[in-house]
Amino acid sequence: MASGDKCLNITTLEAKDVRWPTSLGAHGSDAMHTDPDYSCVYVTVRTSEGTYGNGLTFTLGRGTDIVLLAVKSLKKFVENRTTASIYGNFAKFWREITSESQLRWIGPEKGVTHLAVAAIVNALWDLWGKIRAVPVWRLLTEMEPEELISTIDFRYITDAITPQEAVAILREGKTGQRARIDELVANGYPAYTTQVGWIGYSDDQIRSLCRKYLAAGFTAFKIKVGQDLENDRKRCRLVREEIGWENKLMVDANQVWDVNTAIDWMKNLKDFKLLWIEEPTSPDDVLGHKAIADALRPLGIGVATGEMCCNRVMFKQFLQAQALEFCQIDSARIGGVNEILSVYLMAKKFNTKVCPHAGGVGLCEMVQHLQLWDFTSVSGTMDGRMVEFVDQQHEQFLHPATINKKACYVAPVAPGYSTELKPEAVEQYEYPRGTEWQRMFEEGIFAREV
Amino acid sequence: MASGDKCLNITTLEAKDVRWPTSLGAHGSDAMHTDPDYSCVYVTVRTSEGTYGNGLTFTLGRGTDIVLLAVKSLKKFVENRTTASIYGNFAKFWREITSESQLRWIGPEKGVTHLAVAAIVNALWDLWGKIRAVPVWRLLTEMEPEELISTIDFRYITDAITPQEAVAILREGKTGQRARIDELVANGYPAYTTQVGWIGYSDDQIRSLCRKYLAAGFTAFKIKVGQDLENDRKRCRLVREEIGWENKLMVDANQVWDVNTAIDWMKNLKDFKLLWIEEPTSPDDVLGHKAIADALRPLGIGVATGEMCCNRVMFKQFLQAQALEFCQIDSARIGGVNEILSVYLMAKKFNTKVCPHAGGVGLCEMVQHLQLWDFTSVSGTMDGRMVEFVDQQHEQFLHPATINKKACYVAPVAPGYSTELKPEAVEQYEYPRGTEWQRMFEEGIFAREV
Repeated sequence: MASGDKCLNITTLEAKDVRWPTSLGAHGSDAMHTDPDYSCVYVTVRTSEGTYGNGLTFTLGRGTDIVLLAVKSLKKFVENRTTASIYGNFAKFWREITSESQLRWIGPEKGVTHLAVAAIVNALWDLWGKIRAVPVWRLLTEMEPEELISTIDFRYITDAITPQEAVAILREGKTGQRARIDELVANGYPAYTTQVGWIGYSDDQIRSLCRKYLAAGFTAFKIKVGQDLENDRKRCRLVREEIGWENKLMVDANQVWDVNTAIDWMKNLKDFKLLWIEEPTSPDDVLGHKAIADALRPLGIGVATGEMCCNRVMFKQFLQAQALEFCQIDSARIGGVNEILSVYLMAKKFNTKVCPHAGGVGLCEMVQHLQLWDFTSVSGTMDGRMVEFVDQQHEQFLHPATINKKACYVAPVAPGYSTELKPEAVEQYEYPRGTEWQRMFEEGIFAREV
Repeated sequence: MASGDKCLNITTLEAKDVRWPTSLGAHGSDAMHTDPDYSCVYVTVRTSEGTYGNGLTFTLGRGTDIVLLAVKSLKKFVENRTTASIYGNFAKFWREITSESQLRWIGPEKGVTHLAVAAIVNALWDLWGKIRAVPVWRLLTEMEPEELISTIDFRYITDAITPQEAVAILREGKTGQRARIDELVANGYPAYTTQVGWIGYSDDQIRSLCRKYLAAGFTAFKIKVGQDLENDRKRCRLVREEIGWENKLMVDANQVWDVNTAIDWMKNLKDFKLLWIEEPTSPDDVLGHKAIADALRPLGIGVATGEMCCNRVMFKQFLQAQALEFCQIDSARIGGVNEILSVYLMAKKFNTKVCPHAGGVGLCEMVQHLQLWDFTSVSGTMDGRMVEFVDQQHEQFLHPATINKKACYVAPVAPGYSTELKPEAVEQYEYPRGTEWQRMFEEGIFAREV
């Protein structure tokens, strides 16, 4: 931590279960997750000086209470500490919160407990940005390489990248940084849309959405596949009719296939000039993805995965094995910003493009900061890279992610990590006591849980 | 399900948080888990006919409440169903409970939610054994190959093993089965002990424990390593002085090392004729374990891992990559019996020895059934195989695992999965309201949680 930082006293960590009833419209549905209610565990870290930070992890409704309980079990690592004691050796803090000697057993570094870590850690980055009065992407960009890597726990990844190698990458990234910052501020960062082809949508919906997003400046489109091959072929054809062949088209199977099915199925879609197949199989299957990537490379189709990759050790292997071409980090999974930074650095070392997963609740808001930092400080290029954009739930945030007329993310200017929900969003959608949930229970739209 | 099975009506699934204060004695301590309070989430599935099943997943104290909440979120899959609707297509049931469309996001198939599945599924196997009035190892042994594989969800593993290959393995396993059952009943199954070298023990404790377990018939011993190299060398020397060079010695690092550290450290222990190094690095690191295995093979040291391997997809890769020589399945992790069966079958196909992890709470009780089935029906051999034995918490069970005078597990005879706790164990140790916890809170031995 720069000695110039104010040192604040953290008094409390509050966490809330907040859910939106998105299942009512089949928004966000896919082959595996058929009825999501976009939700989050929403964390607020308060200081005695009044400055506070917000962070979240994204969930799909049921189970948010489980992650909430895990967050509460980890509060003790944050409350009654100074900010200096955290940011002064953030990697050590991160190691502590991910290695609690009894809780570790029910992870480790995966699933519920690691999602809880992400929510807490993300709140601490929001707070740090507010302390320095800069958006997190600028906080990261302005850090000296040594300070930045002091936030990363290199345990289990030194066979892929050492702290020294990471510093060298970041030092190289300082060259031309000023011009890249200016470019970002002027033009933003390319986005792609997943809004045209959720599994539940009709043909007419798909067509009209393609037109809508073309008109909005998008040049890259993703649709869901994996329930029925003939239907997938029909939907790919339909989207290609609308968007033409110069624009990019990607498909997403959300883990429905076994390895050999993935290969066969995608061979049947090869005519549609697909940039990538996303999540063809289990998110845990490094060797399986490698087999798929090897089989599809000759067809010009890349493998993309990462939104459910559980930690840096798994990402390390995907990168070492060249099992993916597009690395889809998720800002609310793995252990928050600190761990994701290590993935970006490994991706740079292994010459792999990071194209973040987003959508959900707050994912676009957070991940734009990370990808902007990748451009200013790590890869130094936007070539072949883009960030997913889904326009849901943004209006719930105080500083929503926004897209310009060329369908690029606008670089955030507000201090912090863009993670603060509007007060009324929490009042309405906190589960189960928010006013909207109470209304929906009373009207019989949702059943009260017993 | 054999048409002869009674069909029962499942009425309720109860779950309890039960914890023993083992941290008071440093029992079970290791480099990563320094103060475990051996605990479990204890599930009871009741039927209207009075027959019930018990299952559990093992935890280390804090966090048991989180797994408990996950179990409660999954109750709906079990309550108000008939046993026929579950056992008639057990793989389908397993797929449903691991794929709940909203809860899946906070896993999938790993960490808290998968431990919860294990506790529930294990209770259903206990119930099934009781319905057929046989211990689970006999239930498995007596099944026809087709019935057995009908319990396994092959999703994500068909590139390693197909249902047809699994049937062929099991059919071959029927040859000579009768004689192997007799052998088991007469002589039991070899165990090894981990009781001689927990990290917290003094030299004198280690020496006297070596003598105790030698006298009890043990010929294989495991100690913890990884905190300090010189101390590890000293402890290995000390144990070798006590047990000699004909007995087996294994070491366990509980994930403390990075890949290159593991290799270097173990080269420094090569003089002690170590059979295996257990958990040298992150349980998620298939490629890392492979690098370690390749480096240590010339020294005659095998790699063992699996107790924290999160699911069949990870085990598949460890086996495909030949990243381990000893496959240490854990009966309370991954998704319970059904998923573990698939690991045994893959281990057979990839010609790898299964040497289960045990200890904790109920792990010895459960895993003996699986390993006995491996001998009767899958690998057909005990060669190079043994089951961990730790003599803690057995007295809490109605039908505890027992060891004979040759340090072999005695084949269980009671119907079910040996998972039923004595009623007084639950009364005393249910957390926090059990009588022993109330006493310890009052005496200030433990602080009441707020």
